[in-house]
Amino acid sequence: MKNLRLTDIASELNLSVTTVSKALKNYPDVSNKTKKRVKEYAQKMNFKPNSFAAYLRTQESKIIGVVIPRLNHFFFSDIIKGIIKAAEKESYMVIVLSSEESYELECKQVNRLIQHNVDGILLSIADSTHDVSHLSQLIEQKIPLVMFDKYSKLTTCSTVVINDQDAAFRAVEHLIKKGRRNIAHFRGPLLPQNSIDRFLGFRRALDEYGLKYRKEWVFTCDEISSEEGYRYTEEILKSHPEIDAIFAVADMPAVGAIKCLNTHNIPIPERIAVMGFSNWKISELITPSLSTIDQPGSLMGQKAFEIFYEELQNKKKNIPIKHQQITLNTDLIERESTN
Amino acid sequence: MKNLRLTDIASELNLSVTTVSKALKNYPDVSNKTKKRVKEYAQKMNFKPNSFAAYLRTQESKIIGVVIPRLNHFFFSDIIKGIIKAAEKESYMVIVLSSEESYELECKQVNRLIQHNVDGILLSIADSTHDVSHLSQLIEQKIPLVMFDKYSKLTTCSTVVINDQDAAFRAVEHLIKKGRRNIAHFRGPLLPQNSIDRFLGFRRALDEYGLKYRKEWVFTCDEISSEEGYRYTEEILKSHPEIDAIFAVADMPAVGAIKCLNTHNIPIPERIAVMGFSNWKISELITPSLSTIDQPGSLMGQKAFEIFYEELQNKKKNIPIKHQQITLNTDLIERESTN
Repeated sequence: MKNLRLTDIASELNLSVTTVSKALKNYPDVSNKTKKRVKEYAQKMNFKPNSFAAYLRTQESKIIGVVIPRLNHFFFSDIIKGIIKAAEKESYMVIVLSSEESYELECKQVNRLIQHNVDGILLSIADSTHDVSHLSQLIEQKIPLVMFDKYSKLTTCSTVVINDQDAAFRAVEHLIKKGRRNIAHFRGPLLPQNSIDRFLGFRRALDEYGLKYRKEWVFTCDEISSEEGYRYTEEILKSHPEIDAIFAVADMPAVGAIKCLNTHNIPIPERIAVMGFSNWKISELITPSLSTIDQPGSLMGQKAFEIFYEELQNKKKNIPIKHQQITLNTDLIERESTN
Repeated sequence: MKNLRLTDIASELNLSVTTVSKALKNYPDVSNKTKKRVKEYAQKMNFKPNSFAAYLRTQESKIIGVVIPRLNHFFFSDIIKGIIKAAEKESYMVIVLSSEESYELECKQVNRLIQHNVDGILLSIADSTHDVSHLSQLIEQKIPLVMFDKYSKLTTCSTVVINDQDAAFRAVEHLIKKGRRNIAHFRGPLLPQNSIDRFLGFRRALDEYGLKYRKEWVFTCDEISSEEGYRYTEEILKSHPEIDAIFAVADMPAVGAIKCLNTHNIPIPERIAVMGFSNWKISELITPSLSTIDQPGSLMGQKAFEIFYEELQNKKKNIPIKHQQITLNTDLIERESTN
C-alpha cells in the first residue's frame, strides 16, 4: 500500500493542502466541520504523516539516544524512567543502548545514534573509556550531549551528577556519630570516578574525626554485588572482629552484608552497623531495613532530558549554548541498620 | 556542514561508488589497501551514512518499538534488557514507551511508533485496554507485532507468555505438600489476565487437594505493592489466626508479608509460610529468603525480538507469516520462607 500524501487528501476533498494540514493538527482557524471531514477521511484511508517527511522539513527526528553502561542495574532503570517521562512531555522518543562498560561499544553506540539522526545524546560513561574523541565529535557537530552520573572532565558538555564524595562523607560521619570507631569500607572498582569519590569521602570523614585509616579494612567490590558483600562480611567476622561498622559503595554489597550477619545471628546494628548507598527499593524491605544515601535517579534522568531540550531550543534560535553543571542533592536515610 | 555522500568520496578517490560502499562495509572482494584509503578519507571527512537514505533504499528503519504498561517495574526492566540484547545482535535499536496501563496512551504510543516507521512493535497490553483495533491495524499494515506477558486473545499475532495458571497451581501445591491447609491468597487486580490466571491456579490447587475455598482469605492487591502485603498480613494476624500460608501474586506483596511477620516476631515458615511469584533479585536477599516462581523476563524479551525478526525476514521474502504462540517454562524456587 502506497502512503497517502497530504496532497491526495486535499485534492480528494477539494481543500487546500494548508487547510488539510491545519485540520489534522487541530488549528483553531479551521472550522469543526472541515476538521471532522478531513479527520474521518484520513482515518478511513489510514493516513500516516510520515516521520521522514517531517524530518526533511524540520531537521528534527524527535528521537534522543541514551547510552548507559549497564542494562541490569536498578539505578539506571530509574534514570531511564525519568528520561522517558520527561521526553514524553515534549513528544520525544527514547532509544536506549548499553555500552556494557566497554569503550569500544560506547564509541559504536554513539556512532549508531548519530547515523540515526537523533537530536541529542544522554550518556553515562563506561568505566573503561579513556579517550573521549567520540564525544567531542558530538560537540563539533553541534549535537547536544548531556552526561549524567558518570562523566568525563575532558568533555565540554552539560552534566547532571551528585556529589559522591560529600554524600559518602556524610554516610561515614553518621556512623561515627553513632559511636562507631572501626569502620570498614566496601569500595567499588578502582577506576570509576564515583567509586573513587566515595572512597575519598570515607577517608576524609576518618581524617576529620581523627580515626586512623587502615587499608586492610577496605575491600574492593569489582561487581558491586550482594555476593561480594556477603563474602567480605564473612572475612570480617573471621579476621577482623574489631570492626563495628561497614560503609558500602552501594546497597547491593550492604544487603549482602546484612544477609551474612543475619545468617550468623550477629545483631545489627548492636554488634555491626551497616550503611549502604543509593536507596534502592530493597533497602527499606529487608530486615533490618538499611540506612543509606538516597540518590535521585529518576530526577537525574529528568534533568538530563530537560537540559538537552533547552540546548536544542537555543541551538534552533542560534543562541550560544551555555553548558550547565548540575549537582543534585542526596539525602541520608536513617533506618534500622544503624539505629 | 552538508553531509558527504558516497558519490563525493568515490569521485575524490577516483573509485566507483560500489567499491566505496563495499570498502566501508568491509567486503572481502575489495583490497585492504583500498579499504584503508576509503576508511581513512571517510573518517577524515566525518562521513556518516545517513539512516534516512538507508531507509529510502531498504524501507527498513532498523528500529523497533516496545510498549510496556509500566516503567517502574522490575519484571519489565528485565524484559527490556532481553529485547535490547537480542536487538543489538541484529543491529536493531529499541525505542521504549510506556502506556502507564492506559488504553488511550497505548493507542497513542502505537501510532507514534508507526509514524516513526519502526519495523515492528513488541507490546505488553495495558490493564485497561478493551478494544484492540489499534493493534489490528498493525496486522493489516503488515507491521510485525509480538505481544509478551500480557496479551489479548482478540489480536491475531505471535505471543510469548508463561502459563500463569499452571505456575500458580504448582506454587500452591508446594505449600499444600509442606502440610499447609489454610492458605491465603494475595491476588492482583481484577482485570488483567495473568492476575486472573494466578487466582484460578490457586483455586484449582485447593480443589484438587480437597481444600475448601474461602473468599475471605483472598485479598486484592491493586498496586501489587509491598505496602499492601504488609497491611493484609497484619489483618491476617488480627482476624484470621488460622491461616498458615500466604501465596502472593508477585514478590512485592510477599516481601511485605515477610517484613510484617518479622516485625511481629512471627516465625517463618513455622507459623506462616510465604510464597511469592516472579523471582526478583530481592527474593533471595531478604531474611528469610523467599520461595517463589522464577519468571524468565530477559528470555521473554529475547524471544519476542527473535520472533519479530523472523517475521520480518519472512515478510521480505514474501513468505506467509505463521504466528507463533510461545509458552516459556517457569521454575519453582524453594527457599527458606516455605522450608
